[in-house]
Amino acid sequence: MASEAEVAASAKIIDGKMVAKEIRDEITTEVSRMKDAIGVVPGEDSAETEVLKFISDFNDDPAVHGILVQLPLPKHMNEQNILNAVSIEKDVDGFHPLNIGRLAMRGREPSFVPCTPKGCIELLHRYGFQIKGKKAVVIGRSNIVGMPAALLLQREDATVTIVHSRTQNPEQIVKEADIVISAVGQPDMVRGTWLKPGAVVIDVGINPVEDATCPRGYRLVGDVCYEEARKVVSAITPVPGGVGPMTIAMLLSNTLSSAKRIHNFQ
Amino acid sequence: MASEAEVAASAKIIDGKMVAKEIRDEITTEVSRMKDAIGVVPGEDSAETEVLKFISDFNDDPAVHGILVQLPLPKHMNEQNILNAVSIEKDVDGFHPLNIGRLAMRGREPSFVPCTPKGCIELLHRYGFQIKGKKAVVIGRSNIVGMPAALLLQREDATVTIVHSRTQNPEQIVKEADIVISAVGQPDMVRGTWLKPGAVVIDVGINPVEDATCPRGYRLVGDVCYEEARKVVSAITPVPGGVGPMTIAMLLSNTLSSAKRIHNFQ
Repeated sequence: MASEAEVAASAKIIDGKMVAKEIRDEITTEVSRMKDAIGVVPGEDSAETEVLKFISDFNDDPAVHGILVQLPLPKHMNEQNILNAVSIEKDVDGFHPLNIGRLAMRGREPSFVPCTPKGCIELLHRYGFQIKGKKAVVIGRSNIVGMPAALLLQREDATVTIVHSRTQNPEQIVKEADIVISAVGQPDMVRGTWLKPGAVVIDVGINPVEDATCPRGYRLVGDVCYEEARKVVSAITPVPGGVGPMTIAMLLSNTLSSAKRIHNFQ
Repeated sequence: MASEAEVAASAKIIDGKMVAKEIRDEITTEVSRMKDAIGVVPGEDSAETEVLKFISDFNDDPAVHGILVQLPLPKHMNEQNILNAVSIEKDVDGFHPLNIGRLAMRGREPSFVPCTPKGCIELLHRYGFQIKGKKAVVIGRSNIVGMPAALLLQREDATVTIVHSRTQNPEQIVKEADIVISAVGQPDMVRGTWLKPGAVVIDVGINPVEDATCPRGYRLVGDVCYEEARKVVSAITPVPGGVGPMTIAMLLSNTLSSAKRIHNFQ
């Protein structure tokens, strides 16, 4: 067991599991209030076969408040066609290009913000870390995490750089960041030496690595080398227990927002 | 008159007027070829009054291949409603949020790319400057230039940072850039000392400054202090005669693309 002095000298652990529980409790309260007031419970579902038909039916069904297409799709399906079929009003994933466009534009508001990046920003907010005016680096430029996370940080007035596979000297760029969001899927890629002392790190990676001492033969690690990083940064999310639970909480939050909007419930 | 030695020691001037003329000549050739082959001439127009009605009619008219809403609109009009009314198929400005969303997403293709940022990238291409792997800084985050320019550079595998009014120490960030695109509308804001030796500068700003020696009482300058910058960088666009003519050329290019698509002409 670590001594108190040792714990005090290392980074604050950003407890996504705990914050996600808080948010889920808040959502439970709102769902109850909504059910009691107007008899509607926000509904969720997912579809995997005859996807377009299901989506069309769900689009038309006022009892469905959110439609989540679980990615990746099987190779014989066209991801673009299927995602585009989801009504913009029920796109709780926030992956519709119209949503992404609104997210990118000043003065526009997306109907929904993609869940994982929203969860990252929510952790920064709930822990009281300032974003405005800070240098932020997003590692990875995927449509589902990196790119929308960068757009969200930009909306919050951070100065944002996206680092990706073609970036030269990524460690130098990351080293200047006050806020780092990593979403690349490379175990322990970001070393302690890459990080600015006092930075805040949100680690989206969930990577299995072989470990014979674990019951399943593997353990999960993030993109950031946790043991090195925690000695350098001021705060970091653990993997697991950081961003993961937040994604689910944000999906519930988006579905609740959708249900409120559909039923004009404030 | 500058000596040849002095000219050789300073930056290459990126001649937008010349490149725009090349592109317009190319477009003229394509329009002639299209007219001769199928009898269609790409059409353009703009609307200022009864805007939504006009847009609706233009959307339905197969002889109209591009719809440009001249911004800014008068204050009593809702910019968002009007821009959204333009059919995505005829949005040659590329400002529809669906277009912007596709521009932001990997694996998606926008119907049209906004003209000014497209012109900036086209200048880099036609002058043979490499973008992939380079550090690029975009100064300004407007919906019509800064943000889409950053998305385009990102698509070309640059490592992109957007600098804006809330950025701390912008000069330090700009100083690291191999490519600088400035679109803020502040005369001579970017000084020679902000720029990395050998950088390539695309100056989108067109700012009037008082000058009693000019016939109209003012002259036009860019966001970048041209006289200082040309001694430091390897290439720079002049103002006027840099990006301005390219915007018009790209609008014609987008309208030609639209006409080709509508008439299924390759």
